[in-house]
Amino acid sequence: MRFRSLFNPTSVAVIGASRNKGEVGREVLTNLIDSFDGEIFPVNPKADQLEGLKCYDSITQVPKRVDLAVISVPSTIVPKVLTECSDSGTKDVIVLSGGFKEVGEEGAKLEEQLKTIARNNGLNVIGPNSMGVISTSSDLNATFAQEMALPGNISFMSQSGAFCTAVLDWANEVGMGFNHFVSLGNKAVLDEIDLIEEWDRDKKSEVILAYLEGIQNGTKFIETASEVTKNTPIVIVKAGKTEAGASAAASHTGTLTGSDVAYDAAFKQSGVIRAGNVEEMFDFGSILAHQKPPKSRKVGILTNAGGPGVMATDALEGYGLELAELQRSTLDNLEGVLSSLASRKNPIDLTGKANEEDYREALNYMIEDENVGSVLAMSAPAAIFSYPELTEIIAEARKKTDKPIVGALMGGQLEPEAQNNLKEAGVPNYFDPARAVRALSALVEYGDIQRRDRSSSNHFTIKKEEADQKMERLRESEIEVIGLEGMEVLEDYGIPTIPAEIAKTPEEAADLAEDIGSLVVLKVDSSQIVHKSDAGGVKVGVEPADVAWEYQSMMETLEQTRPEAKINGIRVQEMVKGEEVIVGLKRDPQFGPLIMFGLGGIYVEVLKDVSFRVAPVSRKQAREMVESIDGYPILKGVRGKEGVDIDSLVDIVQRVSQFAADHPEIGELDLNPIMASSEGARVADVRFRFAE
Amino acid sequence: MRFRSLFNPTSVAVIGASRNKGEVGREVLTNLIDSFDGEIFPVNPKADQLEGLKCYDSITQVPKRVDLAVISVPSTIVPKVLTECSDSGTKDVIVLSGGFKEVGEEGAKLEEQLKTIARNNGLNVIGPNSMGVISTSSDLNATFAQEMALPGNISFMSQSGAFCTAVLDWANEVGMGFNHFVSLGNKAVLDEIDLIEEWDRDKKSEVILAYLEGIQNGTKFIETASEVTKNTPIVIVKAGKTEAGASAAASHTGTLTGSDVAYDAAFKQSGVIRAGNVEEMFDFGSILAHQKPPKSRKVGILTNAGGPGVMATDALEGYGLELAELQRSTLDNLEGVLSSLASRKNPIDLTGKANEEDYREALNYMIEDENVGSVLAMSAPAAIFSYPELTEIIAEARKKTDKPIVGALMGGQLEPEAQNNLKEAGVPNYFDPARAVRALSALVEYGDIQRRDRSSSNHFTIKKEEADQKMERLRESEIEVIGLEGMEVLEDYGIPTIPAEIAKTPEEAADLAEDIGSLVVLKVDSSQIVHKSDAGGVKVGVEPADVAWEYQSMMETLEQTRPEAKINGIRVQEMVKGEEVIVGLKRDPQFGPLIMFGLGGIYVEVLKDVSFRVAPVSRKQAREMVESIDGYPILKGVRGKEGVDIDSLVDIVQRVSQFAADHPEIGELDLNPIMASSEGARVADVRFRFAE
Repeated sequence: MRFRSLFNPTSVAVIGASRNKGEVGREVLTNLIDSFDGEIFPVNPKADQLEGLKCYDSITQVPKRVDLAVISVPSTIVPKVLTECSDSGTKDVIVLSGGFKEVGEEGAKLEEQLKTIARNNGLNVIGPNSMGVISTSSDLNATFAQEMALPGNISFMSQSGAFCTAVLDWANEVGMGFNHFVSLGNKAVLDEIDLIEEWDRDKKSEVILAYLEGIQNGTKFIETASEVTKNTPIVIVKAGKTEAGASAAASHTGTLTGSDVAYDAAFKQSGVIRAGNVEEMFDFGSILAHQKPPKSRKVGILTNAGGPGVMATDALEGYGLELAELQRSTLDNLEGVLSSLASRKNPIDLTGKANEEDYREALNYMIEDENVGSVLAMSAPAAIFSYPELTEIIAEARKKTDKPIVGALMGGQLEPEAQNNLKEAGVPNYFDPARAVRALSALVEYGDIQRRDRSSSNHFTIKKEEADQKMERLRESEIEVIGLEGMEVLEDYGIPTIPAEIAKTPEEAADLAEDIGSLVVLKVDSSQIVHKSDAGGVKVGVEPADVAWEYQSMMETLEQTRPEAKINGIRVQEMVKGEEVIVGLKRDPQFGPLIMFGLGGIYVEVLKDVSFRVAPVSRKQAREMVESIDGYPILKGVRGKEGVDIDSLVDIVQRVSQFAADHPEIGELDLNPIMASSEGARVADVRFRFAE
Repeated sequence: MRFRSLFNPTSVAVIGASRNKGEVGREVLTNLIDSFDGEIFPVNPKADQLEGLKCYDSITQVPKRVDLAVISVPSTIVPKVLTECSDSGTKDVIVLSGGFKEVGEEGAKLEEQLKTIARNNGLNVIGPNSMGVISTSSDLNATFAQEMALPGNISFMSQSGAFCTAVLDWANEVGMGFNHFVSLGNKAVLDEIDLIEEWDRDKKSEVILAYLEGIQNGTKFIETASEVTKNTPIVIVKAGKTEAGASAAASHTGTLTGSDVAYDAAFKQSGVIRAGNVEEMFDFGSILAHQKPPKSRKVGILTNAGGPGVMATDALEGYGLELAELQRSTLDNLEGVLSSLASRKNPIDLTGKANEEDYREALNYMIEDENVGSVLAMSAPAAIFSYPELTEIIAEARKKTDKPIVGALMGGQLEPEAQNNLKEAGVPNYFDPARAVRALSALVEYGDIQRRDRSSSNHFTIKKEEADQKMERLRESEIEVIGLEGMEVLEDYGIPTIPAEIAKTPEEAADLAEDIGSLVVLKVDSSQIVHKSDAGGVKVGVEPADVAWEYQSMMETLEQTRPEAKINGIRVQEMVKGEEVIVGLKRDPQFGPLIMFGLGGIYVEVLKDVSFRVAPVSRKQAREMVESIDGYPILKGVRGKEGVDIDSLVDIVQRVSQFAADHPEIGELDLNPIMASSEGARVADVRFRFAE
């Protein structure tokens, strides 16, 4: 493994080990001594020994090659120290020192130096401005935090060091353990992608959790995460979501936060589970660390209290789960346990009269039912059995089955014995049934992620050379917003268009319409008139015979509404019936080309019913984009109305994806409207802009 | 107060006090003895004394009038015992016994008897099938639960007894107190409305929380809650939300659960805060019990860690809150406390270097800032100050201001001293910043509720007598679905319509169109063709001269598409341009007439962009209905397009509300489409059905 020594060193040097207690360089030394079994070498030219260990003037003085160096010296000295590390053969380094990018321009320069040294010497550097690294599997606490983590199979990274201390404090209290625990700091060298790769290879890291404020290399992130999430679930809280949030992030770590829509699309398509908040991240992490995804979204609910059963049932729908319909045989078996008052369908309410044996039997019947994918085991406090008893029953059941079980044993904190039973069985427990259901939903979601089609994007055979030449010419033309001129490039990419030509006189317009030979659309051609309909610059369904007159009339109207606008002429185009849709593209600074799909017209503008993915999109993803908008039924055909050719839309989305990949110089692109019908889809208008 | 003795008795009889420990009738006796200072009279003809108290054969034997009777005898005996209570002058009764409506038909009959006795004798009965009642202000534990509640100013009721035990267990652990705590049971006599009224009058109940599975008298609930929420916040978890949930509720307590949309509308318009789950309900309750709503939705965030500050900022938008822009003077003052690394705008990040004095100063400056409505006080664990110190600072700040303060001091559980500081100051604290923000949002929401316009609905002067007569005739006509025949009634109610007449021949149609003298709409008139467009039964924008021909053509088409349908003729109506909207009405079993507003056409059908309120709706509420749909910008006018006359839509909504109130015999009504333009709105078509 690439970072073997970072997480599993046999020796550690602490460079900047301080003589003063309470200082970072001293705290990390103490933490190492308290936790670590390997050799520790304090480095401090001003001290002979610290905590009973001999001090060295420099890492170069240490008589053997050291696996891991932890640096806590003033930022200006870090580049020198880093070089010394490299000279001594130490490849893995944690830089705790602050005073880099986060403090402004001077610091940013230092950080660049640090990066260069690392790159030139192949150093793996965590930080700078990191709180350190914990690896419980190596008993390594290379942080200046006040506590060591408990062992576990979750690996966690955070871009906020302060958040690390909070999580550690809390996790130790609730008994949540970690394999690796990393404060990423400024991510000058190693970032979330490196750790995701590493933890995917590491068998002891079964779940990856991350608190991130930004991702620099979006494309690589998607590539890596898409692979990793086949085997290892990734749950991320991405902060800086709202614009207000993002501006706070900018002033915090100087991260250029990408737009949230891009993150959302990227996470979705790479199989990353996005947690909305901290509580969700750890709830998801806990269950993913101990249980396998169920085979179906059907949940069996077992309870001794009706009300809470109703609450749980309520919660299912909101999290995309369903109530399982129990098999006839299960219901027959249950008859033996159920009192006359009990509910005879899922949720099975045993009522307060049920004893622990009834619960055991019922739980087993439920688990055996093939219609049940997972089980929510609920209870209100009852005099008739204790939670230590009940949890033992649940733990037994877990041994017999692969089906997930989540607890909603309500009331105050469980007795230590009961807590322990559940912990050993890997069953999370929540007072709030809705929270238990939410945890279950993360397992179901991860199951979907594992099963999903990971086929790559098609590569269409297109007229590449012609398209490249046209793009070259368009670029040279220095037209700010490309309009009709861009239509032919689309054709080269196999995207059908409705040809249009620009008439400069009423007569030309009439001739063009005659050639088309059916109803036409007239549209003013002027880059200065953005909302053409509003200005009176669009006329739909004109008979060829009326075209000359309508041309005049439109010009007169525009003279009134937009006297200042420079007008090239009036575009004449065949009128094609269908639903208006839009396919767009915007280049995101982190993730590259972000493709958009939606219904066109005023409704999409107001209702914002659109979907996004990052290019390249596979056929599956393109189809998901089309199907996931709220207005999809309109495209599919409602009330007996014939639907549009969905495949042709999926095709256009993919071809735009390919176009975006081939031409990174495009900043923004709108195919709007695309006229879609049962016959196929054709682009009626295009606008695009080169990136700056 | 009406239930003085229920919550503040001086004497209590336990009827059915059992000789066997563990039985309900014994547990409640023990609980009373342990808690209550007044006189206690066990009633059990088979015992002489219990727990050192003399037993009586019947309540009629007790030598004095008893304030409160707690009944735990077999259900069949309950009616007799209830009559004895009444005979002895006891008006307030809690029936713990089960075996009523919840067990089926026989039980339901017994419950009817119980109701009759209560009604005839003016008894206040909680239950049957209740777990009992706690009143901490009277040291009264009249439940068979294992614990007594802690004192507090929240009053709580639950339709699930099991949920009561769970809540009690949990609340005692986290230190949440209650004034009254009621297990409603089957609500045969007293229900949520009675308790809401009572707790509104009761000064010690400052917040009302409820877990409900159904509300029987929806109209009265709205009336009562609308009044009460002026002074006392009400937070409700309504279970049985999804259809699956509702069916579970039905099999649980036999409640006829109304549709969720009606509950949502009813809660919204009566100022009830609906909690999505248990955690939310108690978070909202806690903060509402101790802090006052802020004057604005602008939040100041103070933190010593950037990352968590970003998370909090992220959460604001989702809960309808905003980041406050700090005043220049505040920023100037803060300069003294902020290190060079600190962020100089809200959220104020003091960085990990800040000590407790810095925090104190910064918090005070923030509170004094007029742009700040409330403050989120955050911190990650820091070596430089302790949470006991920090919480003292926050508690001090609370004393100086009416502005709400919520804590997000992250990490594990706070030290007891820190917990106590916050508890005394009434400041809730959460690890998850998003949860802290959510709690704050409940205060903001309640502020909006208190401030809102509570004007009642207008009463329009209409042609009541004419309308009544027409409705009478329509009813007698036994037409299943009223169509055009209903248009004139709308006119009587002052709702403008576009007149339409039915032609039976092409010539009649042509004549009607000539009279109209402009483009017309032709629409087949047949109750058997629901989707008229799909069948080819609608033609828009027909010139009067073409009407005869179009009539023929439509009839021929319909002969093909719907050969079996009985056709009355073809309706001829002036074509009116505008946006299509819909106003509808459906009678809900609990809440009565539910009014709907939305954009018309296929988009609303697919996108379901509609709003609901329960009639009668005030002008304010009608306006909210119109403004709250996602497509409102379309009505208001987008991209320079002229908007429609919103007032005319608000007017129609209110007039439909009045129509619904006057005519409870209407089961369902659709005004669809209503053509709305800047000139006003007119109904083009109507459909309604009488209730069964």
